[in-house]
Amino acid sequence: MHSINAERLIGRIRELGDIGRDAEGRLTRLAGSANDKAGRDRLVGWVEAAGLEVAIDRIGNIFGIWRGEGNAGHAPLMLGSHIDTVINAGIYDGCYGVLAALEVIETLKDLGVTPARPIVVAAFTNEEGVRFAPDMLGSLVHVGGLAVDAALATIGTDGAVLGEELARIGYAGNVEPGHLQPHAYVELHIEQGPVLEREGTAIGAVENLQGISWQRVTIDGVANHAGTTPMAMRRDAGLAAARVGLFLREHIARSNAPSVATVGTMRYEPDAINVIPSRAVFTVDLRDPDEERLQALEAVLADFLARVAEEEGVEISVERLARFQPVVFDPAIVAAIEASARTRGLKSRRMTSGAGHDAQMLARIAPTAMIFVPSRDGISHNPREHTEPDDLAAGANVLLDVVERIACSG
Amino acid sequence: MHSINAERLIGRIRELGDIGRDAEGRLTRLAGSANDKAGRDRLVGWVEAAGLEVAIDRIGNIFGIWRGEGNAGHAPLMLGSHIDTVINAGIYDGCYGVLAALEVIETLKDLGVTPARPIVVAAFTNEEGVRFAPDMLGSLVHVGGLAVDAALATIGTDGAVLGEELARIGYAGNVEPGHLQPHAYVELHIEQGPVLEREGTAIGAVENLQGISWQRVTIDGVANHAGTTPMAMRRDAGLAAARVGLFLREHIARSNAPSVATVGTMRYEPDAINVIPSRAVFTVDLRDPDEERLQALEAVLADFLARVAEEEGVEISVERLARFQPVVFDPAIVAAIEASARTRGLKSRRMTSGAGHDAQMLARIAPTAMIFVPSRDGISHNPREHTEPDDLAAGANVLLDVVERIACSG
Repeated sequence: MHSINAERLIGRIRELGDIGRDAEGRLTRLAGSANDKAGRDRLVGWVEAAGLEVAIDRIGNIFGIWRGEGNAGHAPLMLGSHIDTVINAGIYDGCYGVLAALEVIETLKDLGVTPARPIVVAAFTNEEGVRFAPDMLGSLVHVGGLAVDAALATIGTDGAVLGEELARIGYAGNVEPGHLQPHAYVELHIEQGPVLEREGTAIGAVENLQGISWQRVTIDGVANHAGTTPMAMRRDAGLAAARVGLFLREHIARSNAPSVATVGTMRYEPDAINVIPSRAVFTVDLRDPDEERLQALEAVLADFLARVAEEEGVEISVERLARFQPVVFDPAIVAAIEASARTRGLKSRRMTSGAGHDAQMLARIAPTAMIFVPSRDGISHNPREHTEPDDLAAGANVLLDVVERIACSG
Repeated sequence: MHSINAERLIGRIRELGDIGRDAEGRLTRLAGSANDKAGRDRLVGWVEAAGLEVAIDRIGNIFGIWRGEGNAGHAPLMLGSHIDTVINAGIYDGCYGVLAALEVIETLKDLGVTPARPIVVAAFTNEEGVRFAPDMLGSLVHVGGLAVDAALATIGTDGAVLGEELARIGYAGNVEPGHLQPHAYVELHIEQGPVLEREGTAIGAVENLQGISWQRVTIDGVANHAGTTPMAMRRDAGLAAARVGLFLREHIARSNAPSVATVGTMRYEPDAINVIPSRAVFTVDLRDPDEERLQALEAVLADFLARVAEEEGVEISVERLARFQPVVFDPAIVAAIEASARTRGLKSRRMTSGAGHDAQMLARIAPTAMIFVPSRDGISHNPREHTEPDDLAAGANVLLDVVERIACSG
């Protein structure tokens, strides 16, 4: 049983995490920015130093390719994630998966192993989607889900054009996206949720990824004086809105399903102390790993909104903001993750990814799975994002085992 | 049975309503502004033309005094309201009460009636409280509830000092506030609520005015990823907040009390689609005509917030923003209003004022009551504020009857 070099891995995570900080120490490497370039340059430096072949495709995805003797004719095993960040980010999200992939490759190289197929570390462009929409853009282009020219023409929140930004920072490569069609894809990532930590479980064998439904709901009632309008004569858009999130929580608790529902944004109009809200605008984020159940939940919400409209005397309109179907990962890779954890004496559990990841795109073209490690307090997208060094090492060792099983014993 | 001149009254309401409009036609006469001066000048012109004595006190309250032969030794009957407005106002709020008071005096003068006591039309400064706090400032000073020098030093939302503004527009009078201690005070006003119109009732005999309790509630939960945090592990400040308004509505419905409760403002943090709200900040406006019941309602809310904090695992803090005790009006004047309506064949009902009015201040020093007329759709503080001409005339005629009963048959 081999082991990665935890010190090297964690040192690189911290070093990359120091790139792109502002005067207040806030870490931000938005896709295509100067900070992104600095992070990419550091990554490419490490990839080259490890003796890997670097390929940059037209959408800026970075690949570090380790071809061994006699394996060039085989489809590569791809590992990776992303190194772009949200605003005021933590240092683990994405970067851990990319740097652990590089660490696994270097470990195998150092061990003198000759894999049966090339092994590739990938860092996909604009996974976070903070500056350019959609998120997971680079991996989406890689799997052919979005034409590269359309993706390059994407306008950012700051008015910048993605293609121009990639050229400006020197990462508009020449390679046509999708040139590497992987034999399989494995992504190691922090959980970004509380489950593993709460349970004291070291390894999540991620067997599927939730479907996501985002809707914006607008409720129109009637504004009236808060003092002079009897309760029974009101059409209070705020109270109508209040019922929705509470109903969804109750419904999900009753249904005993793994669905989650979140009302994350809320705005009242006119938003005055002594005026009954005439309008409430809010978002509903629904997720479930099962497409049928997600559709059923959407239908339950629609029925409830119709009931609320009737009962509260308000008008309700709904706008769809985003919709992704659930993804089922490859059972053989998931089993390999569990087997590795068992062998290493690490507690593991099968689980669902609640967030979107590049793996959900790669699953369209290759057997794919993910490995999760615990996130302290479930916190992510925040400077307080943290995973213990032992957990980081354990996850990378499980990745090493899975890579050996897929690429070295074939 | 006498009648006021409805054409003259309504003509003046419309003429005053044309003063203080901006390029887009929006009516705004904030206290102490140039627009306020223009409105005041027009009112004073009418008062002088009617042969009344004009008195301006140091806080800018305008009094038009009709002294008859031999009645100078008696305390005056005071009628009135205010002519300052909110931003983008309707033309009736306040102005109707002032101009109807003038109309009643002119009608009696024209009839050759000699009242047993002086009759005064009053227009109080800064009733709306939009530019200067508190609202009902002029009448509060008149009854001795706020020292005039403190009131004059009030800083407005635009940084202006009330005393300087009054001097600038020529309405910093010499008369000491409170110089006219009324025998009684009667205020005619639009309802600003839907009750009279819904019931087809012409006259509201206002027997009391609600107590008001304003609180700001802050709920602190924990922000987490909307996709990765199971429903049972959440501390959702938004859902905790949603329960409060719904609980209050349900509680009031069960209690069968005339209380009203409104959650008029709501703000989530971080207010992102895919993040569970860590904080919800909202206001609660509670009103009830009975002080004991209002206190009980405040206690019920406090108990419920403690329960929500416990059940939702959130922290809740409360800040008191405003508190006014209920006011009970004079039963004899209320009865006189009802008697007048009966005599005129107008449907009337006893009712509670849900909003604050100058009458609540005057009630501290003299027997007081209010007359309400219907507001179309209950709308006020809005250009769509409307009362039918027949209803305006009916209300003014009831005021005329009440004045005759109090001041002419004594």
